[in-house]
Amino acid sequence: MQSFDLDRTDVLRIKNALEGDDAALEKVLSEYHASEIAILFEQLPQEAKERIINMLPAGIGSEILTEMTEEAHPEEILISLEPEKRSEIIEELDYDVATDIISQLEEHEQNEILEDIDQENATSIRALLNYDEETAGGLMNSEIISVNINQDKRGALAEIIRQSEEMEEFYTIYVVNDMNVLQGILSLKDIIKARFDVKVRDLVKSDYVYVKADLDQEEVARLISQYNLTSIPVVDDNMKLLGRITVDDIIDVMEEENTEDILKISGVSEDEELSGNWKDAVKSRLPWLIINLATAFLAASIIRNFDATVKSLAVISAYMTIIAGMGGNTATQALAVTVRRISLSDLSDRQAYNTVLKEFLVGMINGAANGIIVFTVAFFYDANPTLGLVLFLAMTGNLIVAGVTGASIPLILKRVGIDPAVASSIIITTFTDCIGFFLPLWLASKLLL
Amino acid sequence: MQSFDLDRTDVLRIKNALEGDDAALEKVLSEYHASEIAILFEQLPQEAKERIINMLPAGIGSEILTEMTEEAHPEEILISLEPEKRSEIIEELDYDVATDIISQLEEHEQNEILEDIDQENATSIRALLNYDEETAGGLMNSEIISVNINQDKRGALAEIIRQSEEMEEFYTIYVVNDMNVLQGILSLKDIIKARFDVKVRDLVKSDYVYVKADLDQEEVARLISQYNLTSIPVVDDNMKLLGRITVDDIIDVMEEENTEDILKISGVSEDEELSGNWKDAVKSRLPWLIINLATAFLAASIIRNFDATVKSLAVISAYMTIIAGMGGNTATQALAVTVRRISLSDLSDRQAYNTVLKEFLVGMINGAANGIIVFTVAFFYDANPTLGLVLFLAMTGNLIVAGVTGASIPLILKRVGIDPAVASSIIITTFTDCIGFFLPLWLASKLLL
Repeated sequence: MQSFDLDRTDVLRIKNALEGDDAALEKVLSEYHASEIAILFEQLPQEAKERIINMLPAGIGSEILTEMTEEAHPEEILISLEPEKRSEIIEELDYDVATDIISQLEEHEQNEILEDIDQENATSIRALLNYDEETAGGLMNSEIISVNINQDKRGALAEIIRQSEEMEEFYTIYVVNDMNVLQGILSLKDIIKARFDVKVRDLVKSDYVYVKADLDQEEVARLISQYNLTSIPVVDDNMKLLGRITVDDIIDVMEEENTEDILKISGVSEDEELSGNWKDAVKSRLPWLIINLATAFLAASIIRNFDATVKSLAVISAYMTIIAGMGGNTATQALAVTVRRISLSDLSDRQAYNTVLKEFLVGMINGAANGIIVFTVAFFYDANPTLGLVLFLAMTGNLIVAGVTGASIPLILKRVGIDPAVASSIIITTFTDCIGFFLPLWLASKLLL
Repeated sequence: MQSFDLDRTDVLRIKNALEGDDAALEKVLSEYHASEIAILFEQLPQEAKERIINMLPAGIGSEILTEMTEEAHPEEILISLEPEKRSEIIEELDYDVATDIISQLEEHEQNEILEDIDQENATSIRALLNYDEETAGGLMNSEIISVNINQDKRGALAEIIRQSEEMEEFYTIYVVNDMNVLQGILSLKDIIKARFDVKVRDLVKSDYVYVKADLDQEEVARLISQYNLTSIPVVDDNMKLLGRITVDDIIDVMEEENTEDILKISGVSEDEELSGNWKDAVKSRLPWLIINLATAFLAASIIRNFDATVKSLAVISAYMTIIAGMGGNTATQALAVTVRRISLSDLSDRQAYNTVLKEFLVGMINGAANGIIVFTVAFFYDANPTLGLVLFLAMTGNLIVAGVTGASIPLILKRVGIDPAVASSIIITTFTDCIGFFLPLWLASKLLL
């Protein structure tokens, strides 16, 4: 099967099939992969989704729920299902996915669901519900393959095959001692290729990376990416093996974190759902706009102090908006590069210093280049070379300030433990607006009046 | 080994060790993982890097080169190595990594390197050099495990073990026919668990996703993420198996694409290297700033048309900067949410229409909320209720325009095939500045003079 793009035709086909009986509907649905049905779900009404999940085999239903984004609220479908179907589906779900979905429900709904299902599963899910969703513990899956370090090849291989019965796919085999303390990893290839008298102890690799359950998911993603891992074991404070995180879980984390980064740098609350409604959007954005308004009043108060200058040289108010705006753009460029660098790796003091120095230089050069253009316009269009000089100096000065603040504010915020993407853009806009208004007005008041 | 953060102490330790002999240096380096050495390399001079790679075993040297970012220029180290060491290292590198590194060199350097190495490797790398680096073909690795559909379990297992000898890790086993045409995939677990008289033909799964070699890497990443794959086979136009792309290659692609997205949305050329020098930064950013300057002149020309208004009501020039600035912020918020939505999935016409409608509503509500604040300030501070009304109307109007353009410009650019992240922010800033200046000035000229 090659992937194809879903479009409105697909939605219409399913909507048509929903008019008919289950057999016809099932036939149409059978042409789609579970992850495609999950995407099409976004455009179907709640009753249709419930009917489809109730109708399809639990194996496919569980895959669809797995593939639905958090924003499509798979938990609402889960809670609405007939109890028997629901239990079947939960048995099919990976523990980490089941936990993520169930964690979105009210506590009494969680208990209702967990009482219905197999007690072993319920215990595992309850244990996972205790971890913060955005940590290694919240991300991990407790379905792992582990063998005892004292086993021989035959015993270990039998154990691996037994444990893999219920798993879709597996990567690394973990080796533990009698106390379930992690001892290392074992490659399936090595054990298949080994002679029959070899012991797990002889094959175990102790050079591996692990994480503690309370590590932030962003750090987990960084480790997996840095060490090119396909999975990483999760342990508790006593090094007991709790579960593993696989690279495909990390892809979702990366998408999530990247969405958060882009939203935060643009002054949108990181919790805003991309497909949320207007009420959520107002709630997420209005606070930022009001903070921005307060800082804008601050910048505007500078203009008020130069009322006389504005009155006698009205054209300066057109030019100052240009200089402030160019400062904002320059600062945003420096900010984006710096924030992205910080989020990919920590910078040493020396690297941080060099970054700020570089942005000083870039600001100065770009400021002078744009300053010459503004000078030229003032010289020819306004026939006012002194105004041109004022504007050249103001542009250069503001773009230097913009470059330096754009690079240093996120670095400072990072050092004091504040997420650089959140607060940076408001702080730097305020800076570049204030300086962008002040410099041309002040220089004009000194040199032109 | 738990990961630890590298800091200046680590760089200093290695710099100290570089003063001593090879044995002492090797001892210090042995405490670091290859990927950590790759990070530390960023702060070492070229000669030190060459000495370290020449000194360490080729297996570790190749890992270090693999982990170095493109920006750290591993190809400069490779070309500088002694020919024998270089050949050893290239043999150890995955073909896709070797190709990526070699592709950065001049053609005569490429030929020099490829003539030195084993002819089979050279042929594979030459074939990969023909694919664009940012397509499936450029990303794929030709080291795969494949079995013939007509083999039995014993033959297939022997073949798998033989082919896996030289591979670090493997995921999926591919099944081909006598013509090397892809027939499906085979799970290692299934073949281990199968009885000995079972044939590959009985175990092959034909429900799998593949990609053509010329598919863009961003599409490959989307497929792997959407279908939760650990690897994906790459075929030519005749469905002949060429190689596979693994999920860890995709993590690098995602980081690259996300860096590009953040840079583009901030008006920085996507090719700018995050750790590049000031000359590269000026080259990458100045063109955008000059385009911005041109559009800023356009917006400022609106102010010039209201010279009389500004002269008689100087305070309006302070307020108009607030209204234009708030429009810019609102548009950036709508833009970020929309660009991110588009980059995660295609929107249907109906979804696109709903998105614009939502941003209209959000702009109106946030505009009215901020408009009331500005009205209040004008009423009490400036004791001018009519000015307050002008500002309330201008704020609401501009934030509606900001929301609608912030959502619709990227949607329109996407439809006409332009990358929405690139041009959007300049276009919307121009819009919100022009309307943000025009509305208060025009309303003031009608209602206040």
